[in-house]
Amino acid sequence: MSPNKQFQRIALIAKPDVSERLRNTLRSVEAFLLQRQVQLAYDERAAQVLGHGGAKPLHQLAEQSDLAIVIGGDGTLLSSAREIVDAGIPLLGINLGRLGFLVDISPDDMLSILAAVLDGHYQQDNRFLLSCKIGDRHPQLALNDVVLHKWNVARMIEFETWVNDSSIDTQRSDGLIISTPTGSTAYALSGGGPLLAPSLDAIALVPICPHTLSNRPIVIHGDSRIAISVSGKTDPEHVRVTCDGQASLRVAAGERIEVHKHPVPLRLLHPAGHDHYDILRAKLGWGEHPK
Amino acid sequence: MSPNKQFQRIALIAKPDVSERLRNTLRSVEAFLLQRQVQLAYDERAAQVLGHGGAKPLHQLAEQSDLAIVIGGDGTLLSSAREIVDAGIPLLGINLGRLGFLVDISPDDMLSILAAVLDGHYQQDNRFLLSCKIGDRHPQLALNDVVLHKWNVARMIEFETWVNDSSIDTQRSDGLIISTPTGSTAYALSGGGPLLAPSLDAIALVPICPHTLSNRPIVIHGDSRIAISVSGKTDPEHVRVTCDGQASLRVAAGERIEVHKHPVPLRLLHPAGHDHYDILRAKLGWGEHPK
Amino acid sequence: MSPNKQFQRIALIAKPDVSERLRNTLRSVEAFLLQRQVQLAYDERAAQVLGHGGAKPLHQLAEQSDLAIVIGGDGTLLSSAREIVDAGIPLLGINLGRLGFLVDISPDDMLSILAAVLDGHYQQDNRFLLSCKIGDRHPQLALNDVVLHKWNVARMIEFETWVNDSSIDTQRSDGLIISTPTGSTAYALSGGGPLLAPSLDAIALVPICPHTLSNRPIVIHGDSRIAISVSGKTDPEHVRVTCDGQASLRVAAGERIEVHKHPVPLRLLHPAGHDHYDILRAKLGWGEHPK
Amino acid sequence: MSPNKQFQRIALIAKPDVSERLRNTLRSVEAFLLQRQVQLAYDERAAQVLGHGGAKPLHQLAEQSDLAIVIGGDGTLLSSAREIVDAGIPLLGINLGRLGFLVDISPDDMLSILAAVLDGHYQQDNRFLLSCKIGDRHPQLALNDVVLHKWNVARMIEFETWVNDSSIDTQRSDGLIISTPTGSTAYALSGGGPLLAPSLDAIALVPICPHTLSNRPIVIHGDSRIAISVSGKTDPEHVRVTCDGQASLRVAAGERIEVHKHPVPLRLLHPAGHDHYDILRAKLGWGEHPK
Repeated sequence: MSPNKQFQRIALIAKPDVSERLRNTLRSVEAFLLQRQVQLAYDERAAQVLGHGGAKPLHQLAEQSDLAIVIGGDGTLLSSAREIVDAGIPLLGINLGRLGFLVDISPDDMLSILAAVLDGHYQQDNRFLLSCKIGDRHPQLALNDVVLHKWNVARMIEFETWVNDSSIDTQRSDGLIISTPTGSTAYALSGGGPLLAPSLDAIALVPICPHTLSNRPIVIHGDSRIAISVSGKTDPEHVRVTCDGQASLRVAAGERIEVHKHPVPLRLLHPAGHDHYDILRAKLGWGEHPK
Repeated sequence: MSPNKQFQRIALIAKPDVSERLRNTLRSVEAFLLQRQVQLAYDERAAQVLGHGGAKPLHQLAEQSDLAIVIGGDGTLLSSAREIVDAGIPLLGINLGRLGFLVDISPDDMLSILAAVLDGHYQQDNRFLLSCKIGDRHPQLALNDVVLHKWNVARMIEFETWVNDSSIDTQRSDGLIISTPTGSTAYALSGGGPLLAPSLDAIALVPICPHTLSNRPIVIHGDSRIAISVSGKTDPEHVRVTCDGQASLRVAAGERIEVHKHPVPLRLLHPAGHDHYDILRAKLGWGEHPK
Repeated sequence: MSPNKQFQRIALIAKPDVSERLRNTLRSVEAFLLQRQVQLAYDERAAQVLGHGGAKPLHQLAEQSDLAIVIGGDGTLLSSAREIVDAGIPLLGINLGRLGFLVDISPDDMLSILAAVLDGHYQQDNRFLLSCKIGDRHPQLALNDVVLHKWNVARMIEFETWVNDSSIDTQRSDGLIISTPTGSTAYALSGGGPLLAPSLDAIALVPICPHTLSNRPIVIHGDSRIAISVSGKTDPEHVRVTCDGQASLRVAAGERIEVHKHPVPLRLLHPAGHDHYDILRAKLGWGEHPK
Repeated sequence: MSPNKQFQRIALIAKPDVSERLRNTLRSVEAFLLQRQVQLAYDERAAQVLGHGGAKPLHQLAEQSDLAIVIGGDGTLLSSAREIVDAGIPLLGINLGRLGFLVDISPDDMLSILAAVLDGHYQQDNRFLLSCKIGDRHPQLALNDVVLHKWNVARMIEFETWVNDSSIDTQRSDGLIISTPTGSTAYALSGGGPLLAPSLDAIALVPICPHTLSNRPIVIHGDSRIAISVSGKTDPEHVRVTCDGQASLRVAAGERIEVHKHPVPLRLLHPAGHDHYDILRAKLGWGEHPK
């Protein structure tokens, strides 16, 4: 049986950036995989950087592959994950010299790690995404967080939040961060939220600069249905919703924002021996002592 | 079939306090239950207040009952829960005029709620306890939290924490709060921890006054095995472990502290229509706006 | 000597709002003061509500008066204070039924308090304002805070902060709150800043959702000169500065934001026996115990 | 005129520790100063390490010197400062290889810095100490903080705090940190307090794990008189007061704890060009970005 039996068709996805570093990394990965007789396909950026034709949209790429390798930063992985999650293929992230929470393979040792992964030595880490529906519009996905922001205004906004049809509070604040465990190291942490273990089936609700001293981050079950309605006192022009901070969606007067777990998990691959706390230490200085 | 089919034998457990209020509440409850032809048994305090003989130790009482009614405050419920959890009977808490997070039935409407409960109208809320083992000693249970404290000293203590055999950090601080969702409204909240939904299968680790700015509360899976070892730099005399803040246990040099979920859940009963967020609002001023 | 020797010419300033409550309060105050033979002058809103002609702009009103009485909420007092501070006359705030941090006299006992104030029985509390200069433009004043905000964008902004020409940090965050002691109960508190005693000669710098765990609020001397320059990585379109949250000012590329104490203090009058901590208790639930 | 005109008599004070590093550092400093014809005196530890006789108690040493050089860590400087502050002589701190907030001169460049200091090139930074009086007992000094601690118990303590005879709150918590600006980088920071600029004339009151969500750090004027009385509900055995964390004082039932600024400032010398924010960066990772 071939050593690569699991991952015979691999999609290469690249950061939207044309650096020498990206080109060299992509070339090395490509050469290595071709030598291993893997069948490769490319997203638009990877195809362009490598001078190939035949690029495909991400979701089509994902359906025709067994594994996607993302080369870039956490931002590239976030946007790729939202597009390919439904295809159910796993994702592996190679950073471009700066460790990410999600792209945790360094270019320095990527070839030996890729070899190990093709031989079946890796850890799989299932992460969930959030699905956010505003009014009747098409839902958007988020791997880190869905955030309600005040927008274009200095004043606080007012909104009510429900969890499974129970009203939990009416809040005046700069907004609310609805974070997955994956997002707990991102904006939610800046807002004072707790770290959540990556595999925890839980969602954190973190108020942004709440007006009341009694407001605190709250962690609820991953299966909760969350709904938010902006108060009539707040002009809808002064509210936006973002998913992973990468698009800003308007909320019309009277529209509810509904957020719940997306049913298909993201399969994130890590090198064998991967330790989440090592990444916290490296990225956040977690547990570091004053010198 | 009789209306009380589920709860035919009820244990009455009282706060260790001899107030007029307690006596009156106990008498009303007793009279009501006898009228409903329930078979009653009493813990030592309830028996004493009511002038009965025949009191039994809590664990024996629990094994011979279908339901335990605790009359007192959260502290009484916490200590009762640790003793009766293994019998698997549900627990109902009546407060003595001051709402608790756990004793959420007011004397004012207790009789109508008891009637409803006996008729099968109630909500059941499973809570888990933590089991804490120090060295080879007999494990202790905690419904709120297991806390490692600095003791008898102004200086910080130093200790290392493992989750499922991964070292998460070595910390200098005043201690560590290992909290269940139930305990997230108690000491963990004072220490800056997040609120956890009561049914969440998760444990919060909340550092107490950590020396490093990068230390934050972390929420891990309820099935995690947590271990702590106090550093050789810290005198064991300056460390204690408490369970629900109700006993302080020494830790000898070299002893590990091991904490994990107790396998038998606590069944907590609430009136139908119970809403956890109402209790947060009433007790914490949660979501209250400045006047 | 007349009993009103200090305050013979009083300016009445009203909230921009036409409620029955405002009209009645203004009429009572006017009737009372006329009876005390005080010479009255009116701002545009007060004149309109009372059906008088002869309204004057605030700064002119202030120069021709010995005392200004503001009837409204904290917002009305904030905007009035910025306009009349340079005239050096004291300010007294009457709320419209909802206690403010600044407008601390209730309509219920305003007449007896006014009588006492006219007789010389009051406490004076000097507050300082901040002056904020962006590039070469005309400085703006703020009694609560000067705030640098991210604007119209979900991403953090990057900027460097200097205190007296020492660079204190380069920060990525949602912005920075530069707060007077007066503002320490306002937005700075939502951002996690400390309370400052009202008379403290100090300024708090409170980062809004900072990206780094090590960032903390810092309190510096009231005489400090603060400067901020937005990084070239941040689009100037995504930055605004507000003074007391009541206007939003653009910052062009390369413009520095300079903030320092305004040289003329605001004289705020309170009833004799006024206690700042009573207001904290009433407004913030400061020191309140869980029920 | 001699170049050393200001500092002709220098006291050497050493850490209570007998390391090779300490001996070498002391010898270098001694040799250098003797060559500069400075008259030296020694505290007990310095005398012992250098093999000299004639050691003197710190306060006597201070009265007969123009400058004290402390060689050790922040702890050594804290304890020395409390003993010599009243003599009014300045203090210079040399660390033993690990930068302190207070001992900010490295052994690597101490000789050139000492040369510059003797030539009059240095910055002087006045710091104030707190004086803490319990009941009628002799007051104790603290350069960092006076802390009220719960002691030997898991339960919170209850106490009332006054500032200038106004009651600010009755608090249930693990205690209260009363911190100088110098102490704001120490225990107060662990407790969630703000950083205070070193020269600020202000005191921070930082509650330790307060029971109420509305409790926040508060910064008051340096001239404030603070008083604390422990509630009758709290057993005096379960309370201690520490000064700089270096001694623990009992509080008898009914005794008030009174804290105010000590009238004589500490004169702390730094190398010319010293920048407090550099030390925050080096010690706290202040303003550091995630990697």
